[in-house]
Amino acid sequence: MNGAHALLATLEANDVGVCFANPGTSEMHFVAALDDATTTRAILCLFEGVATGAADGYARVLGSPAATLLHLGPGLANGWANLHNARRARVPLLNIVGDHATFHAHLDAPLQSNIQLLAHALEGWYRRSTSSDDVAGDVALALEAATGPPGSIATLVLPADVSWSELENVPSPWPRVARPSPRAIDEVAFERALVALRSKRCALFLGGSALSKEQTGLAHRVASATSSRLMMETFATKMDRGAGVVSPERLIYVSEFAVDQLKDLDVLILVGSIEPVGFFAYPNVPSRLVPEGCDVIDLAPPGSDTLGALEALVEALHAPTVAVERGEVTGPPSGELTTQSFSAAVGATLPEGVIVADESNTSGVHLFGTTRFAPEHQWMTLTGGAIGYGLPVALGAAVASKGRVLALESDGSMMYTLQALWTMAREGLDVTVVGLSNRSYAVLTMEMSRVGAVRDGGASERMLELDDPTLDLSQLALAQGVPSVRVTSADELVVALERSYATPGPMFIEALLPKGLH
Amino acid sequence: MNGAHALLATLEANDVGVCFANPGTSEMHFVAALDDATTTRAILCLFEGVATGAADGYARVLGSPAATLLHLGPGLANGWANLHNARRARVPLLNIVGDHATFHAHLDAPLQSNIQLLAHALEGWYRRSTSSDDVAGDVALALEAATGPPGSIATLVLPADVSWSELENVPSPWPRVARPSPRAIDEVAFERALVALRSKRCALFLGGSALSKEQTGLAHRVASATSSRLMMETFATKMDRGAGVVSPERLIYVSEFAVDQLKDLDVLILVGSIEPVGFFAYPNVPSRLVPEGCDVIDLAPPGSDTLGALEALVEALHAPTVAVERGEVTGPPSGELTTQSFSAAVGATLPEGVIVADESNTSGVHLFGTTRFAPEHQWMTLTGGAIGYGLPVALGAAVASKGRVLALESDGSMMYTLQALWTMAREGLDVTVVGLSNRSYAVLTMEMSRVGAVRDGGASERMLELDDPTLDLSQLALAQGVPSVRVTSADELVVALERSYATPGPMFIEALLPKGLH
Repeated sequence: MNGAHALLATLEANDVGVCFANPGTSEMHFVAALDDATTTRAILCLFEGVATGAADGYARVLGSPAATLLHLGPGLANGWANLHNARRARVPLLNIVGDHATFHAHLDAPLQSNIQLLAHALEGWYRRSTSSDDVAGDVALALEAATGPPGSIATLVLPADVSWSELENVPSPWPRVARPSPRAIDEVAFERALVALRSKRCALFLGGSALSKEQTGLAHRVASATSSRLMMETFATKMDRGAGVVSPERLIYVSEFAVDQLKDLDVLILVGSIEPVGFFAYPNVPSRLVPEGCDVIDLAPPGSDTLGALEALVEALHAPTVAVERGEVTGPPSGELTTQSFSAAVGATLPEGVIVADESNTSGVHLFGTTRFAPEHQWMTLTGGAIGYGLPVALGAAVASKGRVLALESDGSMMYTLQALWTMAREGLDVTVVGLSNRSYAVLTMEMSRVGAVRDGGASERMLELDDPTLDLSQLALAQGVPSVRVTSADELVVALERSYATPGPMFIEALLPKGLH
Repeated sequence: MNGAHALLATLEANDVGVCFANPGTSEMHFVAALDDATTTRAILCLFEGVATGAADGYARVLGSPAATLLHLGPGLANGWANLHNARRARVPLLNIVGDHATFHAHLDAPLQSNIQLLAHALEGWYRRSTSSDDVAGDVALALEAATGPPGSIATLVLPADVSWSELENVPSPWPRVARPSPRAIDEVAFERALVALRSKRCALFLGGSALSKEQTGLAHRVASATSSRLMMETFATKMDRGAGVVSPERLIYVSEFAVDQLKDLDVLILVGSIEPVGFFAYPNVPSRLVPEGCDVIDLAPPGSDTLGALEALVEALHAPTVAVERGEVTGPPSGELTTQSFSAAVGATLPEGVIVADESNTSGVHLFGTTRFAPEHQWMTLTGGAIGYGLPVALGAAVASKGRVLALESDGSMMYTLQALWTMAREGLDVTVVGLSNRSYAVLTMEMSRVGAVRDGGASERMLELDDPTLDLSQLALAQGVPSVRVTSADELVVALERSYATPGPMFIEALLPKGLH
């Protein structure tokens, strides 16, 4: 029994079902140990940003952590951007970072680097195991830290010799981490919220765990009973949506509009969310979005008992049940493929139970409207702003849910982590990817004018446009083993989506949109 | 005149000709400023790891820094692995990292992260500009730090408001950093080396700047005059090679063999290199490679005057000129495509002056032999062990040299930074890429047994093999606008290489090798 086997045994004892892996030499003993695994399996990813994003997607669906297996500092760095997104999503996640043997580190070999700094920049838990006898305990501590609540990124460094050395004392049983309860609600904050709801112009501002169907339903009752507004954060980790599900008003990404949305509020009551701020700063636009004088009550911070808070509000207010708004999905679109008809096609075809990983950026501005009354589904968004999250998160969500996932993916973002497609093919996952080709970083065209930059030449234009040469997105998918098709009309997109939902395994649909921002 | 313009002006004043960029919102003012650029141009990369690797390749060729333009912490993180390689290559490199406005940072917006920790993990210079009036001076300090010698990674964080704010005092002229001289040689070390060369079993161990044609020639004279051995580090940043160029004995990657190579030495004299150590640790293999009792003399550390040291040795020893070994390239191979015939094809066709970016890994073990007497060329290798360096470095080298670059790229490594192909197509660069398809992480098959891991099942095998599904490398290139061809015999490879060398612009050649390690 060596350290690698102890790691595996502790993962299995804690029901960590999957390790998204891109191993190297220092991880070979763990890879060998996988042959003895019974409940934990490794899934190979061709780039670490795919592995970490997949672990994020897995945790968004199950609420429990997957592991990643990364190769020294560069491996952690390659996965860092999607770990940043996972941190912002507040999901639990365990990185296993293989490293040089303890006796080798001081020699400054080519792959030596300061892993600790990279890990600390993720603002989570970090430890370096120094003995194979410590591994099981360290993994348990890591899982405990990752689980929170709220979830966070735990990074355990496993030196090669710790991995290959035999244990002197094999734990029996392997340490098992209890699934923690959410933290209790602060009574003072609760009383303040109750007073405000009864007397002021309030909005409940939902995020995180409060975006489940059950909790938005409760929040809707509270809002109705108090004539308050029901709002939600712009970028949700995961939310229930569709027919029969309450749909809070989403805070708009554009700060100027968000300020306008919030301007009449006396009180913003946070439930599972944090106070909203501008995604970026802009000249002459406030970075804080709530109006001056608006009271912000932190009723139920991330990781706390948002369900309990909402239930208690319903009870205290005797808030009656209220009907959920009903509506119809518009029929399948026809004709030209535009951002409007793309969104309409998604709304018109979405099957019940699908999980959507949305990285459609400017091409997807109409999606929330067109899918509002689609069959019940779940929606995931880019929580940390580091592009390249969509395909990996869709991959992890498909592994976790064993159901259909729809990834809506802009071309610019897709190019960050396109290697995820290969793993989707390898694992035969039911992922439908719509690759949105608008041949530009369209969002930057918008942001350029928002920040007040004035450009007047080809040099800057060349930083915003992706059409020289044109990327053949469907060919990129095909080359990685994912069946693919290109559609150039709304009708074709509808047919392709319906065929994909009816066909097991992954399918890539390149949607050729008009160029640029629309 | 805002901070962004001041940045550009200072880059131009210091002849930083290229900025490899992947901008976001916080960098829009710099992008707009590019329209006023006269001598600095930006080259768009679709992933930051491409931008940083390209800056590495650029610096390897010219010895002077390129800039990168990266978007906040995730952008720096995405580029980190190739910055690690650049750090190990000891090249000068300047990262410009756009960040939130100074007044926005405390709000912890979604893209906020600790950039400083990421930068410090690169062990180079770091600063965050806080005023547009500081930008020019900060850029000059950054360039000075990056230039060394030896070169290192300088990271300058440019908050959005520093970029968009007007300067109160516009510097005239813009600060210009002097090109520094290499550091002087330590006289004590020189005397010790001289004594050792005259009396002991020595090897000159060359690396870094000492691998130029001129310096290997001098070292050859020293070695011949003293019956010493002439050796070189395993992974060179850049070296002159081919007909008429001295070819030092390369230290073997496999520690056991390297130990055997060095076992008879009394003294190892370092010239532009550091003491060699095992790339990884292995059970029962020493991590230090020099034999116990072997004296290591640090004659000319990286960044010091290696040329002066070698000239002084030649003079002190009255070392006569000696003929360089002559030989013939074997004729073009025919028949089956194997690692042997692949290497022979490269050797038989290599034109004079080509720069080779070698990330062929296990498929390339015969290359040094087959290209030994090819027309004079330059060779670059993976200095930091973080795979995915080859295509980006080839891109940057082609931009810098304006000549033909040959990238030899394993499939597993290529998948890390395949987005470099798009920029090669966009810029019309004369890069020939040979994509080596062996459908496996072959090096790990070897390393698995070297570390003593015993695997006995399909779970571990699935972590080492890439053939389910098979990646269509040529299609991946074609999809990004690079003409491509797949070859399945040595004859076809020879024809494809010759055609590529004769054709302007990039060309991708997928070489279908036998599966796995050979």
